[in-house]
Amino acid sequence: MRGFASDNNASVHPEVMAALAAANVGHQPAYGGDVHTDRLRGLSKRHFGERADIYPVFNGSGANVVGLQAMCDRWSSVICPESAHINQDECGAPEKVAGLKVIPVPTPDGKMTPELLDRYASGFGDPHRAQPRVVSITQSTELGTLYTPGEIAAIGELAHERGMLLHVDGARLANAAAALGLPPRAFTTDAGVDVLSFGGTKNGLMFGEAIVVLDPGAVRGVEYLRKAALQLSSKMRYVSAQLVALLDGDLWLRNARHANAMAARLATAAARVPGVGIVRPVEVNAVFAVLPGDVTERLRRQFRFYPWDERTGEVRWMCSFDTTEADVDAFVAALAREMAA
Amino acid sequence: MRGFASDNNASVHPEVMAALAAANVGHQPAYGGDVHTDRLRGLSKRHFGERADIYPVFNGSGANVVGLQAMCDRWSSVICPESAHINQDECGAPEKVAGLKVIPVPTPDGKMTPELLDRYASGFGDPHRAQPRVVSITQSTELGTLYTPGEIAAIGELAHERGMLLHVDGARLANAAAALGLPPRAFTTDAGVDVLSFGGTKNGLMFGEAIVVLDPGAVRGVEYLRKAALQLSSKMRYVSAQLVALLDGDLWLRNARHANAMAARLATAAARVPGVGIVRPVEVNAVFAVLPGDVTERLRRQFRFYPWDERTGEVRWMCSFDTTEADVDAFVAALAREMAA
Amino acid sequence: MRGFASDNNASVHPEVMAALAAANVGHQPAYGGDVHTDRLRGLSKRHFGERADIYPVFNGSGANVVGLQAMCDRWSSVICPESAHINQDECGAPEKVAGLKVIPVPTPDGKMTPELLDRYASGFGDPHRAQPRVVSITQSTELGTLYTPGEIAAIGELAHERGMLLHVDGARLANAAAALGLPPRAFTTDAGVDVLSFGGTKNGLMFGEAIVVLDPGAVRGVEYLRKAALQLSSKMRYVSAQLVALLDGDLWLRNARHANAMAARLATAAARVPGVGIVRPVEVNAVFAVLPGDVTERLRRQFRFYPWDERTGEVRWMCSFDTTEADVDAFVAALAREMAA
Amino acid sequence: MRGFASDNNASVHPEVMAALAAANVGHQPAYGGDVHTDRLRGLSKRHFGERADIYPVFNGSGANVVGLQAMCDRWSSVICPESAHINQDECGAPEKVAGLKVIPVPTPDGKMTPELLDRYASGFGDPHRAQPRVVSITQSTELGTLYTPGEIAAIGELAHERGMLLHVDGARLANAAAALGLPPRAFTTDAGVDVLSFGGTKNGLMFGEAIVVLDPGAVRGVEYLRKAALQLSSKMRYVSAQLVALLDGDLWLRNARHANAMAARLATAAARVPGVGIVRPVEVNAVFAVLPGDVTERLRRQFRFYPWDERTGEVRWMCSFDTTEADVDAFVAALAREMAA
Repeated sequence: MRGFASDNNASVHPEVMAALAAANVGHQPAYGGDVHTDRLRGLSKRHFGERADIYPVFNGSGANVVGLQAMCDRWSSVICPESAHINQDECGAPEKVAGLKVIPVPTPDGKMTPELLDRYASGFGDPHRAQPRVVSITQSTELGTLYTPGEIAAIGELAHERGMLLHVDGARLANAAAALGLPPRAFTTDAGVDVLSFGGTKNGLMFGEAIVVLDPGAVRGVEYLRKAALQLSSKMRYVSAQLVALLDGDLWLRNARHANAMAARLATAAARVPGVGIVRPVEVNAVFAVLPGDVTERLRRQFRFYPWDERTGEVRWMCSFDTTEADVDAFVAALAREMAA
Repeated sequence: MRGFASDNNASVHPEVMAALAAANVGHQPAYGGDVHTDRLRGLSKRHFGERADIYPVFNGSGANVVGLQAMCDRWSSVICPESAHINQDECGAPEKVAGLKVIPVPTPDGKMTPELLDRYASGFGDPHRAQPRVVSITQSTELGTLYTPGEIAAIGELAHERGMLLHVDGARLANAAAALGLPPRAFTTDAGVDVLSFGGTKNGLMFGEAIVVLDPGAVRGVEYLRKAALQLSSKMRYVSAQLVALLDGDLWLRNARHANAMAARLATAAARVPGVGIVRPVEVNAVFAVLPGDVTERLRRQFRFYPWDERTGEVRWMCSFDTTEADVDAFVAALAREMAA
Repeated sequence: MRGFASDNNASVHPEVMAALAAANVGHQPAYGGDVHTDRLRGLSKRHFGERADIYPVFNGSGANVVGLQAMCDRWSSVICPESAHINQDECGAPEKVAGLKVIPVPTPDGKMTPELLDRYASGFGDPHRAQPRVVSITQSTELGTLYTPGEIAAIGELAHERGMLLHVDGARLANAAAALGLPPRAFTTDAGVDVLSFGGTKNGLMFGEAIVVLDPGAVRGVEYLRKAALQLSSKMRYVSAQLVALLDGDLWLRNARHANAMAARLATAAARVPGVGIVRPVEVNAVFAVLPGDVTERLRRQFRFYPWDERTGEVRWMCSFDTTEADVDAFVAALAREMAA
Repeated sequence: MRGFASDNNASVHPEVMAALAAANVGHQPAYGGDVHTDRLRGLSKRHFGERADIYPVFNGSGANVVGLQAMCDRWSSVICPESAHINQDECGAPEKVAGLKVIPVPTPDGKMTPELLDRYASGFGDPHRAQPRVVSITQSTELGTLYTPGEIAAIGELAHERGMLLHVDGARLANAAAALGLPPRAFTTDAGVDVLSFGGTKNGLMFGEAIVVLDPGAVRGVEYLRKAALQLSSKMRYVSAQLVALLDGDLWLRNARHANAMAARLATAAARVPGVGIVRPVEVNAVFAVLPGDVTERLRRQFRFYPWDERTGEVRWMCSFDTTEADVDAFVAALAREMAA
């Protein structure tokens, strides 16, 4: 059964499979001493600037938790929108693995602002308070919204003024770049981001994300923390080769553009179905709609997708690099059918 | 450059690559809801008994740390040989991720015994002492040695008598099975093992290991702990398909047998080189030798391998599924050359 | 300089000093084997019911963090009002020491409600979410407000319905009892509270609080957790003797009543000073007022007290067992003087 | 019942009680802003040098765990003798609270040596290994033995050479000073010790120890770590006043000398009882003897003391500031009686 449950339900892009096959030759030193990881380091500098260091890891939670730890002292707190993956969807890993205090900020759209940061970042120097050290934002957000480069720069500026650092969870960074029509650097390195979780799995990889350290002065001990957080891949060539496949040409952009386009197609068509409300801006590859409960139930027997808020009837439809126009059209047809039933 | 540095430097077995390609079709539910993981569950029961539950993870440290947590309370300690991977080679992950106290037991051969366990497992009921909860052994060990089924059963029996549990780090379990000529079940489930880390990466996989819970009563919260320890793969089908490829037929055994055979060939030939001492029993796929320092240095320019103990000149040569007879013979020839130089 | 900074700035009640002197005779077994701790156990049952177990600790953060751990699994979350001490004032100890995820709920008055709990307690059974296990409320709250027994019972009922437990931070439990005119049992044991942090330091002790386990089935490993959280006092008789002094007669109630009465006197008199706004209900021993910034500044040179919210000019005045009518009157006189200046 | 169970079973010295009473006047700022803590800071510099900073805490485990964290990164390990309190008697707190890897070194006499440190401190720069950061020794040791200043300096020198730091658990530092006839500074500050846990509770206090930072460059975040480790006393004046009572005059030395003298008296007399073996050097206030099991059992009905090693029949007799000559003589008489029985 196909569907719109998650970009995690998608397969692996054929070019990535080809890269894995090509990397499967002979011996390579384990733990990052291989030629693919070396090449990835160069690509990272090309995309994110000469100061950028890249550390491949297994998954997005791993990238987040290792990156945040490397930025934080034992007594630090991390401020983020309440809807952030690090707050909602990592089973408390930042707290449990790293002892970090996560301070969730309620927002209407999943986006931090300088005003919100200013209100929540307090208690500096007070030993009774975990010390605000990092503001973490997600680009594009868990609610399918986008920050402009200027919005990110404004958060970064305030953060740095307060002695804090800016972290970006970029599990869908490519979707943001595609939507903004800008290279990732424009809204990361150039916007004052210190550390980035760069997403691969949701954009066509089999597995693999990367911590990209944009300001080496912002972190300590990444190598040790990656190992101790269980995120050091032994046969690292197979993570790096995938990331190289994504970043060397424009596969990262092609995949993201396609996913975004499918979401736009879906939103446009679904909005025309009488009774269906598209309830959030569709800026990248996610569509949020409100449906009657029984329609949701019947539709989910035909296509995979998730309820988002059972109170309101909100559902989430996520498109991926391998969503086809036929997928979208068949889904909208079924939606129209069920809404009319 | 090829060599004998680690079974982690090896490539991925072609049958595993084929399985990955075959799994790369259409959508599959993320996080273990896919058909491959389902099939793996069945295979796990076939190999380890009807009560066995299997949880795929990214790597061996992950399998160990998740499994141990699931067996332990917050105030537990884990007793293991000093040479254990969990003690030596995980950058303190059991302590850091899970707060576990690891109690290392010095041993001559990397093997726990009931006598040693009896001596180190103490302080039961005393709130000043972390409470001994798990004895963790590695089969085959980090020193290339093997437990017999009877030896494991004796440790398990004493552990259970004391209210403790038995954990096996089986990163090289297949090598042990090949060497013993026994199915893995004979020295795990049937020997009283409660939880097993089943290794794949060192035996021809790209990545992927599994926690195999042999006694479901021995654990709590594995699903949550796997996620919180950053070990829940989103596109899990690609971990499970590899493990299925390994376990469905006899690939696990063929790979391990070959690696063991190559180690035997290497040890036999190297022992004939004048001045070379093979200093530990060669029971699986590791060979430990003592060489003059300058020979080690020159050899390492031609073949990758690691010094083991710089004080004694001991080095480790590790064979893998893709070690060839030609690899061995070329290496021994070079060894003989350098020893004679 | 005297003042209204905190009930922590107060001295030790003479009856407590006398109890310490009386306990200072001969040898007593360390770590709770002494006669005073034994007597405290009996008192605890008298106040909180036959099932109650009491564990003396050093301080309130200790009582909270040990109690919460004993109720929680490694993958649990704790839901509490945003203003809770465990969220705001423990430097992240619940996260750092115990790996707990704290979920703060914004409230107008520092009080949890069943409706808020219902909204925030979600994700049960989903491995991506830390599992809601405890709702923690403070009685009386950090904002000087009170729960009625019925309000607590309603939260407890919903919590238990969801498989959760109810924890009360009772650093100022005696002030609540005095204000409600009820024995502590009426709004703890009898209202479905599972575990209580019982406060002493803020109510006339030198140091010392206690974890009171009202439902022994709600906790595991308290003894080990107390030690591992650095809260096991070796010469425990000196903690227990203080708690006995508080709980044996009615010292707990006399002290709390007095502090509450002084706050009432202060609030009443201050409210009559033109321009001074008392901005929260004065239910126990705290008064929150809004003052012009320069008045606050001048007053703080004469009396110790803390700004509460620098944005709004809100300040906090806290009364304690040793606040005198003369203290209050002198302060209000100064307040009137400065407001008129 | 009196006895020789622990210096923790002793009472509080009258001069300390008097200091507590004297401190119990009026209001004092909480959390260390009081005059007693201020005075303690000066005393600390007088005893340990101008660079010394002192942080009062509740107990010895607290002093150790806060001090070690302040010296360590998240990925650090701490090397100590196997018999160290931090390894044996803190229920795994260094691991659980701070995620530290503790590496225990077997020793015959509880003492680290440069040779042992050299052997166990390895893996620098290797991300698979927790990084050796601190060597922690106990002065006087848990086995009643002593380091000379030169022995400590040699360990410190090697540690610093390797980029490590030297920590001393000084729960019985005063006993060591008394035995050596030297001021504490001679074998701490002047011997290259970086951070010290200074003991009070075992030397006549009610509760209270202190972290003494001898090299401020060796630590980070002590204030935050103390709070987050639940060791920040709110009414700190009552900890500090006790430590002032100990350190201002020579009470620390008088108490320790007396305890040591009682141990010497006990050892000398017990050694004369036929069949009693004193099995370790008696250098401070502990006596270790081997007795027949039935004698131990009968004696423990009359005097409190602990078995040390049930295998060998070794028992521990600990003297304290309030052990009297009569205590010793009565005990030895009973010992002689029971041995003859």
